[in-house]
Amino acid sequence: MTSQPAATSETATDHDADAGAGTVRHRIAVVGGTGPQGKGLGYRFARGGHDVVLGSRAADKAEAVAAEVADRLVGVEGAGTVTGATNADACAGADLVLLAVPWDGHDELVATLPLAGTTVISCVNPLAFDKRGAHGLVIDGGEGSAAESAQRIVGDSATVVGAFHNVSAVSLWGDDDVLAHEDVLVVGDVKEAKETVMALCASVTGRPGIDAGKLRLARQVEPLTAVLISINRRYKIHSSIKVTGF
Amino acid sequence: MTSQPAATSETATDHDADAGAGTVRHRIAVVGGTGPQGKGLGYRFARGGHDVVLGSRAADKAEAVAAEVADRLVGVEGAGTVTGATNADACAGADLVLLAVPWDGHDELVATLPLAGTTVISCVNPLAFDKRGAHGLVIDGGEGSAAESAQRIVGDSATVVGAFHNVSAVSLWGDDDVLAHEDVLVVGDVKEAKETVMALCASVTGRPGIDAGKLRLARQVEPLTAVLISINRRYKIHSSIKVTGF
Repeated sequence: MTSQPAATSETATDHDADAGAGTVRHRIAVVGGTGPQGKGLGYRFARGGHDVVLGSRAADKAEAVAAEVADRLVGVEGAGTVTGATNADACAGADLVLLAVPWDGHDELVATLPLAGTTVISCVNPLAFDKRGAHGLVIDGGEGSAAESAQRIVGDSATVVGAFHNVSAVSLWGDDDVLAHEDVLVVGDVKEAKETVMALCASVTGRPGIDAGKLRLARQVEPLTAVLISINRRYKIHSSIKVTGF
Repeated sequence: MTSQPAATSETATDHDADAGAGTVRHRIAVVGGTGPQGKGLGYRFARGGHDVVLGSRAADKAEAVAAEVADRLVGVEGAGTVTGATNADACAGADLVLLAVPWDGHDELVATLPLAGTTVISCVNPLAFDKRGAHGLVIDGGEGSAAESAQRIVGDSATVVGAFHNVSAVSLWGDDDVLAHEDVLVVGDVKEAKETVMALCASVTGRPGIDAGKLRLARQVEPLTAVLISINRRYKIHSSIKVTGF
C-alpha cells in the first residue's frame, strides 16, 4: 500500500470553532450510527465538542436516534451537534468517518461510501459465536483484518486507522466517567491520521489513545474483543482493557 | 478433543506443605527456565511458596540460573526451593509444567517431554519480527495457537492451560510490586486445571488470574503480545494489560 495522509487538521477541520482547550473540532460521520457502538461513540464525540452525523441505511431511523442522542446532550456545555442522515450523506463534508458496522456486508458497504479525503476510523470486530462462545473470525487466511480490508477498498483515496474496538457499548452510553480507567488502542500506518484519532480518544476516555503500532496489528486488536466478551459472560461485567507500565 | 482433568489438587500437590493461607504448594517445572520469561516466572512462583525446577537443554546451565534465583530468595519467608535440571528431568515429579520456550522448535520439544498427568501451562507467543515491528504468526491457517498445538501433542494425557503470555520478563525479574496492577488472562477447556492456574497467578500479581475463556482464545491472547511489544518500543516502557470493569 502507498499510504498518504488524508484529512489533516489543516485541511478538513475547523480551528475557529474550538472544541476545548487546544482541541480540534471535527465533523464526524458515524456509518452504522444507530447500532449500540456507533450511537455510543457518536454520543461521546459530540459530548467532547465534535459535530456528529449518525448514518444509517434509512435517514429517518438515523434522525430518530440522533434526536435521542441530542436530547441527552441538552445543557452539556461545549457539546457539538448531532444529526442523522443516510450513511452516504453522513460522509459528505465529514473529515472523520467512523465505520461502526457489522463485519457481515462490511466490504460491500464500504465500497459504496464517498470516503475520499477522509480519515476512516474502523472499530469493526470480525467475530463469530458458537456454543463455546465468541472467537475471532479468520480474515484473509489470518493475514488480514477489517481495518486492512477497508484500507484496501479505499486505496490511496483515504487513510484507515483502527480504534475503539474494545470499548463496551454499554459503557459508552453509561455514566460520564465509566470509561475513565480504559485505554483505546490505536493502530495505523500514517502518523498524522493516527495522531488525529489518538487525540479524538480524549472525548471518550478523557485522555489520548495509545499508539499501538501499524495497521496490521488490527489483526490482534479486533479479535481481542472476543476475549473481553468471554470475560463479560463469565463475570457479568462490561470489561475493557487498560495498558499498564506508563 | 476429549478433555480430561490431569493433575488436580487432590492427586499431585502437597496440602501439608502449605505455601500460605489456603494456598496449595505446587512442584512446578519450567521448561525453558533459563530464558528471561521462564526465569522470571520461576522466581515469582518460588517467591510465592512453590517448589520450582528450572529446566534447560543442559543441566549445568539450568543449575547455574537456579542458583542465581535461589540467591535472590535467601531470607524471603515462605519461599519455595529452586533447582535446575534438564527439561525432561525437571518435569519428573512436577504437577505443573510451564512451557516457556520459543515457538521455533516448540512442537518437537513438547513431544519429547514426560508430561502425562500434569497440568501444562503455556506462555508461548508465536511472533514474527520484521522492519515494521512485531506481529503474530499465523498458526494452522489462523485456527490454531501454541497452546492448542501443545494440547494436540499431549492428547488426553495432560491438560494445557494458557497463561502469562502478556507479562513482561523485565517486570517479572523487577521489584516485588511492579506487577501489582497487571492481570493475567487464563484460557483453557478444563475448569479444574484452569482454576489451579488462576490461583497460581496470585504468586505473580498478588491476585488470581482472570478466566478469559476457552483454550482457543489463546489465538487472541498470544499475539496480543505483539501489540504490547509495539507499545513498548513506541513509549519505552514495559507494558502489560489490566482488565477493567470489575
